[in-house]
Amino acid sequence: MSTKRTGLILGLSVTANGSHSAGWRYPGAPADTSLDFAFWRDLALTAEAAKIHFIFFADGAAVRQGADDPEALRYIGKIDQFEPLTLISALAAATTRIGFVATASTTYNEPYAIARKYASIDHISGGRVGWNVVTSWSEAEAKNFNLEASLRHDLRYRRAQEFVRVVTGLWDSWEDDAFRRDQRSGEYVDPAKLHVLDHSGEFFSVKGPLNVARPVQGHPVIAQAGASEPGQQLAARTADLVYTAQQDKAAAQAFRAGLKARAAAEGRDPEAVKVLPGILPIIGRTAAEARARHRTLRELVHPKVIYAMLEPKFGDMSAHALDGPIPDLPETNGIKSIKGQLDAARARGLTIRELYETSGAGGHRQIVGTADDIADLIEDWFVDGACDGFNLMPPYFRAGLTDLLDLLVPELRRRGLFHADYAGTTLRRNLGLTRPPHPAARLAG
Amino acid sequence: MSTKRTGLILGLSVTANGSHSAGWRYPGAPADTSLDFAFWRDLALTAEAAKIHFIFFADGAAVRQGADDPEALRYIGKIDQFEPLTLISALAAATTRIGFVATASTTYNEPYAIARKYASIDHISGGRVGWNVVTSWSEAEAKNFNLEASLRHDLRYRRAQEFVRVVTGLWDSWEDDAFRRDQRSGEYVDPAKLHVLDHSGEFFSVKGPLNVARPVQGHPVIAQAGASEPGQQLAARTADLVYTAQQDKAAAQAFRAGLKARAAAEGRDPEAVKVLPGILPIIGRTAAEARARHRTLRELVHPKVIYAMLEPKFGDMSAHALDGPIPDLPETNGIKSIKGQLDAARARGLTIRELYETSGAGGHRQIVGTADDIADLIEDWFVDGACDGFNLMPPYFRAGLTDLLDLLVPELRRRGLFHADYAGTTLRRNLGLTRPPHPAARLAG
Repeated sequence: MSTKRTGLILGLSVTANGSHSAGWRYPGAPADTSLDFAFWRDLALTAEAAKIHFIFFADGAAVRQGADDPEALRYIGKIDQFEPLTLISALAAATTRIGFVATASTTYNEPYAIARKYASIDHISGGRVGWNVVTSWSEAEAKNFNLEASLRHDLRYRRAQEFVRVVTGLWDSWEDDAFRRDQRSGEYVDPAKLHVLDHSGEFFSVKGPLNVARPVQGHPVIAQAGASEPGQQLAARTADLVYTAQQDKAAAQAFRAGLKARAAAEGRDPEAVKVLPGILPIIGRTAAEARARHRTLRELVHPKVIYAMLEPKFGDMSAHALDGPIPDLPETNGIKSIKGQLDAARARGLTIRELYETSGAGGHRQIVGTADDIADLIEDWFVDGACDGFNLMPPYFRAGLTDLLDLLVPELRRRGLFHADYAGTTLRRNLGLTRPPHPAARLAG
Repeated sequence: MSTKRTGLILGLSVTANGSHSAGWRYPGAPADTSLDFAFWRDLALTAEAAKIHFIFFADGAAVRQGADDPEALRYIGKIDQFEPLTLISALAAATTRIGFVATASTTYNEPYAIARKYASIDHISGGRVGWNVVTSWSEAEAKNFNLEASLRHDLRYRRAQEFVRVVTGLWDSWEDDAFRRDQRSGEYVDPAKLHVLDHSGEFFSVKGPLNVARPVQGHPVIAQAGASEPGQQLAARTADLVYTAQQDKAAAQAFRAGLKARAAAEGRDPEAVKVLPGILPIIGRTAAEARARHRTLRELVHPKVIYAMLEPKFGDMSAHALDGPIPDLPETNGIKSIKGQLDAARARGLTIRELYETSGAGGHRQIVGTADDIADLIEDWFVDGACDGFNLMPPYFRAGLTDLLDLLVPELRRRGLFHADYAGTTLRRNLGLTRPPHPAARLAG
């Protein structure tokens, strides 16, 4: 293992109250982290002390689950959270090295506003921000933005392609040295270094220029997680980081190789696209402790939450026992589309609860074990080219996170996989990504 | 003067590089404050130490002046700045008591996004945020948001009325005690305390609920500055703070009385609407020092900036000497509409430079003098009911601000006009405004 691969990227993918749906009920866990800024500041500082590359905040502009079913809503611990751009701006002010990746939708925003906000946070943070590009799947969001129903999938992705092109174009409104600020002569800016975008396309007409100087990173880091064909195409063209849900190594290897091939076909350096599967680790100091924590979490999932989460996908199972077999429900439109998945679960003899558990965590790999067990899986995937790192999804706070930072991260460092310290001060630099030169400099160079 | 009015409100209205167009060139002033976060953090902490009520950030989503004229742009020191919502989030994390009011447009945003962002910052800051509602006048902004030209004025204000109604409705999505977070029973939220907005109007269809708990202040403070008839109507209906440009006391008294009468006619408590004129003070330890500072600033305004700023309003004067008389230009559409203003300036014998100076500062009152001189004017207006306080507009940094905080503010405090300390922890409380109860509580109560 002497020439073993190094440079493992570790992000923290965090949601209010933890990634496990019962995380907020875990004994000793804080139940009110969702709008507690002091909690998130502590979390960011703790993660920074462990040299985590970045913290990632998923987002949707709606209460996406349970809003139409009051009795399910009562028990769903994921309703309220900070708006991520305001949150990461505040966290950037409280930290110095760790990066922040926040989600913003290309369906419910305007590119000028998004270009400006990320450029602004990039200057506030000294170059530590990333944008997770999403097209927003939920019907609840559409209804908050003047629509009866979501835009068609292909339309959303066409809009996303153009949106990202406009945003990166606006970031290049000014060359890096455009602002002279010469007090003696009174020359504030060199107009020869201004590049007005003047974009006119299918979805957007945006003149520019941006009223923010070029971002510290040139372009903030771009992340993308779409798994569909157009999603992968968008990622291959534009993304620095690709988030993905993968259950096994072979599929992850194939996904990563495919994505890098697509990026190469787009004329990009495949090394410049980092693929990061999510992983939901339930860690213990011993295997028995990890299993006990897992059991506790499972038992704390309120039955109504299980039925409510399964219903939109599989149909109403609430007349059947949670720990009994998956019922043979009458076919509905919902069931039809994923009948194979349901049949497979039934063939494996899963209970309703187990169906929920395997389809939970957004399809991300879950692992229950010691730091060594989790490090073994991470090392195996990383060394065998199944990923460039992982998005760690702490199931609950605080121990569900701090044990990862105190036990798992040092183990990964001991194995020579994870860095001892940040390489630089910007997120790009720490991820091993180059700073994109301004197009005018590319032409001149 | 023993029963003299107290409770003077002081905001700081700040723009990158100071409010004077040559502020960035002032000897010893930093020329690069626009994207220097450490500068703004220091400024906020300094203002907080002086117990200033809030810092106000004006904004536009475009380079609004000079973008079409490269040679004017070169010398205009107001091009780049932080996006204000990201900036105030970061500043909120660095402070504990001072408020922050940031501008956001009702023409180029969606109400769900705005409701969320201000609610989020209100939770981050512990209740210290305000929203300055603008409808965006500039053509440059329209061109950044898919339009050829700005929406008609009346349409913009109709949209603004509906926009504010939707935002405040979304802030009331949840009653104050809706979130129970009871770990034992698993009840996270009480669905009986959810109020889905289900808004459908002329401009917006927004279902709700907001995915943020009710703001700390109930509703973040709302500021408004429209001087037109629909602008004043919007302010009377919705604003807690009204910004205004006033040159003399009698006009300010009339404006304030009129606005309070309108608010009363809308069924609001007129005391709950605070009118704050802007004032651009050029302060010195002696009158001579103040005059010298003023002279220095005037001389640092680049001639091209003067001609470029006058041109859209009055026509091209660049063939005439700055310190010579205002020329009798051929009438244009631009000149025709404000011919009276120009004739009056000519009758007073103003030079081109003086015309620029009197029409500069956005029409706000400028005063050159000692702390005593400025305090005299503030006291006179405040005691005589011309205002509820002022927005101080520092012309340059740092002395142009710190001298205000070190000399003027203590003088206002000595006179018993300005508070010795913050009354509470929220902006509403410090401004003497009540926290709006939730509509459900109003019904029940």
